[in-house]
Amino acid sequence: MFFKLKTITLLLIGTAAVATAARAAEPIQPIKPVQSINLAQVELGKKLYFDPRLSKSGFISCNSCHNLSMGGTDNLKTSIGDHWQQGPINAPTVLNSSLNVAQFWDGRAADLKAQAGGPIANPGEMGFTHQLAVSVLASIPEYVVEFKQVFGDDSIDIDKVTVAIAEFEKTLVTPNSRFDRWLLGDKDALTPNELAGYDLFKNSGCIACHNGEAVGGNSFQKMGVMEPYQAKSPAEGLSAVTGKDADRFKFKVPTLRNVAMTYPYFHDGEAETLTEAVDIMGRLQLGKQFSEQENAQIVAFLKTLTGDQPSFLLPILPPSTDRTPPPKPFG
Amino acid sequence: MFFKLKTITLLLIGTAAVATAARAAEPIQPIKPVQSINLAQVELGKKLYFDPRLSKSGFISCNSCHNLSMGGTDNLKTSIGDHWQQGPINAPTVLNSSLNVAQFWDGRAADLKAQAGGPIANPGEMGFTHQLAVSVLASIPEYVVEFKQVFGDDSIDIDKVTVAIAEFEKTLVTPNSRFDRWLLGDKDALTPNELAGYDLFKNSGCIACHNGEAVGGNSFQKMGVMEPYQAKSPAEGLSAVTGKDADRFKFKVPTLRNVAMTYPYFHDGEAETLTEAVDIMGRLQLGKQFSEQENAQIVAFLKTLTGDQPSFLLPILPPSTDRTPPPKPFG
Repeated sequence: MFFKLKTITLLLIGTAAVATAARAAEPIQPIKPVQSINLAQVELGKKLYFDPRLSKSGFISCNSCHNLSMGGTDNLKTSIGDHWQQGPINAPTVLNSSLNVAQFWDGRAADLKAQAGGPIANPGEMGFTHQLAVSVLASIPEYVVEFKQVFGDDSIDIDKVTVAIAEFEKTLVTPNSRFDRWLLGDKDALTPNELAGYDLFKNSGCIACHNGEAVGGNSFQKMGVMEPYQAKSPAEGLSAVTGKDADRFKFKVPTLRNVAMTYPYFHDGEAETLTEAVDIMGRLQLGKQFSEQENAQIVAFLKTLTGDQPSFLLPILPPSTDRTPPPKPFG
Repeated sequence: MFFKLKTITLLLIGTAAVATAARAAEPIQPIKPVQSINLAQVELGKKLYFDPRLSKSGFISCNSCHNLSMGGTDNLKTSIGDHWQQGPINAPTVLNSSLNVAQFWDGRAADLKAQAGGPIANPGEMGFTHQLAVSVLASIPEYVVEFKQVFGDDSIDIDKVTVAIAEFEKTLVTPNSRFDRWLLGDKDALTPNELAGYDLFKNSGCIACHNGEAVGGNSFQKMGVMEPYQAKSPAEGLSAVTGKDADRFKFKVPTLRNVAMTYPYFHDGEAETLTEAVDIMGRLQLGKQFSEQENAQIVAFLKTLTGDQPSFLLPILPPSTDRTPPPKPFG
């Protein structure tokens, strides 16, 4: 009996070691469930994320362009802003954005909190000011009470607003994709075709930039390495932040998590399909012309990266009061 | 023992009779929970309600203007349509709209199903066509499967789309307001001030039009009975449907359920606050100038009509495919 128990223990240790080794060997890691979170901030941030009263028009919320019904983006080439202005760049998904090394395509915001204030005050997006957005919230008693409950004092400011939105966004991770189940040891989770796609993805060099927990999001790379990218968009990427000419057309490598839901692709949204995106990436970044079969296999692999979408009740927003400054959609 | 039981029985019958009499005597009835519903249609309809791909731009869904986070409306004077067009009329709440005698302010749609197709094909709203909307849905395998599961055949058409949306909308009732709890016998549910407001509401004549389960929604009445309404909006109401001059400026009486959430008020959205709306209604419809206290009491009563808002998980929409016609937000 003692002997038998010992054998089982050894077997278990052995299995665990193999599994750890297998995981450690893969350049992509499974998405970890959210660990530490401030739930009160999350609930407040969720309301703010869905509240169009943070925009001048009263019509555009964070969720308008980072739609959580649609992979955390708007599925448009470039977004629609205040007065239907055409945005200069494709809206990146908010899903798993907490895993990014920085926010925005050019990385100009260090973290989610710094990002969250951007669109509110951007004249081409929500078209408001931080001061006006805060004055709207401060006119709504339920918000005043909730901010006090969450932050412990009587004032509402943009710092608290963006802290809460960022905390909500940290919950927007998508674990449990088929690929992650495979990484975690369920060898039946992927088909041979999908696995062949993953091998191609690794062996062709895609993995050099698209790696880690988010399969991207952790570096800036030049768009157009082997041949220049013919951009229609005026966006120049990281150079707008660093001022360095060497950083022109360097963009944050997008996450490939849920990439089947986050079409169209690239910073300018010019690639409508995964097939097109894989083809262009292969040629421009790797100098490789994938065959039709190879392309299809890589696409099949990419589709296994769709994880569990965030699931929550649609928030009910507290109504404005007679003191709330009315929105100005047509002013 | 037998005698005692009989007494209790008689007492119970007596109480029930009194409660029934009290309810029957009131001109407003509590909202009934949804009785018979096709749950599969509801789940499909919920997705469609939130799907901006039913619009030309891929940006506007039913929920954009009938926002279920915001009392089933957009809280704007008039709505924003395709290319930021300014709508001609205030978006009525979708909450409890199943209780309306007809749909739209001018009643031009007989029911929710007939209504649901309107905005999709309205050039000033979602700016699409029924044919194109159906072709988008038909290109998405998950929708094809779900339509087949729900309706039992392989085709998707606008009839099925609007049946499903309407079935979802039937679930959007808001029972359990404090006023309904009072109607159902909880005499502590209202304050004396709110009850005074209800008495004024009845005794001043508001109740003549705002009655029944929805506190309105069951008749068409002229806007401006005792004195003409100075409308800025070109909308002329029922006459646009009947062609009768006598129906000019007759509009469907709006429901007052959740009226604290459905600001601004009137078909043109020109009344920003309940105080203003009560004042104007009193003067124009009833020839009454409510005192400040009377107005405040009526407003206090109206705020008791906020019921339980529909509570459901934000739907996750199936992604488009390579075959899906892309949206045209700027075309």
